[in-house]
Amino acid sequence: MFPSANEICDAHQRIFPYVHKTPVLTSKSIDELAGASLFFKCENMQRGGAFKARGAFNASLQLTNEELAKGVATHSSGNHATALSLAARTLGIPAYIVMPSNSKRIKIVSVEAFGGKITFCEPTLQARESTLEEIVQKTGAVFIPPYDDYRIIAGQATAAKELIEEIENLNAIIAPVGGGGLLSGTALSVNYFSKGCAAYAAEPAGADDAWRSLKAGKIIPSINPVTISDGLLTSLGTRNFPIIQELVSEIIRVEESEIISAMRLLWERLKIVVEPSSATVLAAVLKSKDLFEGKKTGLILSGGNVDLSEMKNYF
Amino acid sequence: MFPSANEICDAHQRIFPYVHKTPVLTSKSIDELAGASLFFKCENMQRGGAFKARGAFNASLQLTNEELAKGVATHSSGNHATALSLAARTLGIPAYIVMPSNSKRIKIVSVEAFGGKITFCEPTLQARESTLEEIVQKTGAVFIPPYDDYRIIAGQATAAKELIEEIENLNAIIAPVGGGGLLSGTALSVNYFSKGCAAYAAEPAGADDAWRSLKAGKIIPSINPVTISDGLLTSLGTRNFPIIQELVSEIIRVEESEIISAMRLLWERLKIVVEPSSATVLAAVLKSKDLFEGKKTGLILSGGNVDLSEMKNYF
Repeated sequence: MFPSANEICDAHQRIFPYVHKTPVLTSKSIDELAGASLFFKCENMQRGGAFKARGAFNASLQLTNEELAKGVATHSSGNHATALSLAARTLGIPAYIVMPSNSKRIKIVSVEAFGGKITFCEPTLQARESTLEEIVQKTGAVFIPPYDDYRIIAGQATAAKELIEEIENLNAIIAPVGGGGLLSGTALSVNYFSKGCAAYAAEPAGADDAWRSLKAGKIIPSINPVTISDGLLTSLGTRNFPIIQELVSEIIRVEESEIISAMRLLWERLKIVVEPSSATVLAAVLKSKDLFEGKKTGLILSGGNVDLSEMKNYF
Repeated sequence: MFPSANEICDAHQRIFPYVHKTPVLTSKSIDELAGASLFFKCENMQRGGAFKARGAFNASLQLTNEELAKGVATHSSGNHATALSLAARTLGIPAYIVMPSNSKRIKIVSVEAFGGKITFCEPTLQARESTLEEIVQKTGAVFIPPYDDYRIIAGQATAAKELIEEIENLNAIIAPVGGGGLLSGTALSVNYFSKGCAAYAAEPAGADDAWRSLKAGKIIPSINPVTISDGLLTSLGTRNFPIIQELVSEIIRVEESEIISAMRLLWERLKIVVEPSSATVLAAVLKSKDLFEGKKTGLILSGGNVDLSEMKNYF
């Protein structure tokens, strides 16, 4: 049922011409703070500014010619909307994007920059789903979900696969968890392509539905989450949860102040622009020294789409 | 007289264990704006946050054991101070740093972080030189100049050498010019290691002493320069100028607003933190389309040491 190693390899070959092989950065000073050897996989430098391009291309590139002719559609307030617009523009097809009316300006601008056709709706899951349904009815476009989809999971898995191929003998890889697309893909790649490596997740304490879901043994929806990590607000997907249950060793919860401190470290020491969601993984590693001390640890920095004019709120 | 190709190769081998081979990044959207293929050499991700580590290590590693025992010294308000402190700490020797009393807090903090012993002085060249002279007299430390030194020039040249080795058939490489250490090294590497490639420089219009020096055929000192590019305030060195005269095709002057726009593009599209000095090269390429259109162009991003809390002044 889960995407197989072959399917992830196929995804990697399929998307390779369209996405960046993102760099892996290191910092001696952050290593000293962590007491571990950290390898940062910079998906913030991915096309569209986030790992989401991997899944969006992998799904879009598998559509039939008939499907392509009608275009793709999704609802998203964030990086998946941008990534799908980018993939659609690359394939020369329309992308219909339903965005909640309270979406951040920078996300709207980047969807528009890639030619996505935006329909705004009320900021509720119900409104998002019903508006999308109308658009799909009207246009015949194919819905490409943001995470609860095996093609998306296999696409996102390629980030960890690249990291494993570039850095030998990693002991641990950690990814942030929101809907679980990146995390489930990461856990699959760790399972298939590495030996003796464990998969971990980082999650904001103010949006800890994944942590609670693992505890409860069933999906607990994310209700009124509060965190600056705006990529990690959603509930786990039904296809993502069982993979995470089986293959993720632990979900580490981090406080807002820890996320901001880690984000500042990444900006100041690695000289990269990352969004708060990305910083959760470093916050988790710095917090859980018992788990990572002395270990070669890969950290997936999920994205870098921040509004620079908001930086004064953090630094 | 100029450092030879062999001397630059020796420098590269000498410093290789101590510095990062920095990544080269690309951006399709910035390429579209420029109408050219741009390759960004990320010396902002160099150890100490700037290319300066290359020269500082190359000079320090050539000291005799007697010299090493007494340590190194310099005057600098910026990245050379940090780089020399880093090199000294790595070699287990003291670094005596004379800094003008108006140095930026972030530069002072990073010198201290690497264990540099700071002496503050009045913010004039005279005070810097006399204070340094006193310290050298007292300690016997060896003065390592920031740019007017062939070991420094050969070290800085290795950034362009790496870029040329990684990206084939570049038509142009552009570096910022302050004292001329990076630019003269870049021009030498372009001359020795590439074919049909031209070396260019970017300089703030408010600190255009290098541009005026090239016009005049002699070094015109930088007097009361005004620019946010705080790494580019100094006058050209006597060893740097003849190399620049002979091997640099053109110095392109850019306005402050162009530097800020280019810096924003680098932060937003490449997702990297660069200081204003670094942004001059992109500003120059975007301004001089006639020179770069359709060309494979390498841009040396010199450093990333900015105070994040000052960002609200720019964005």
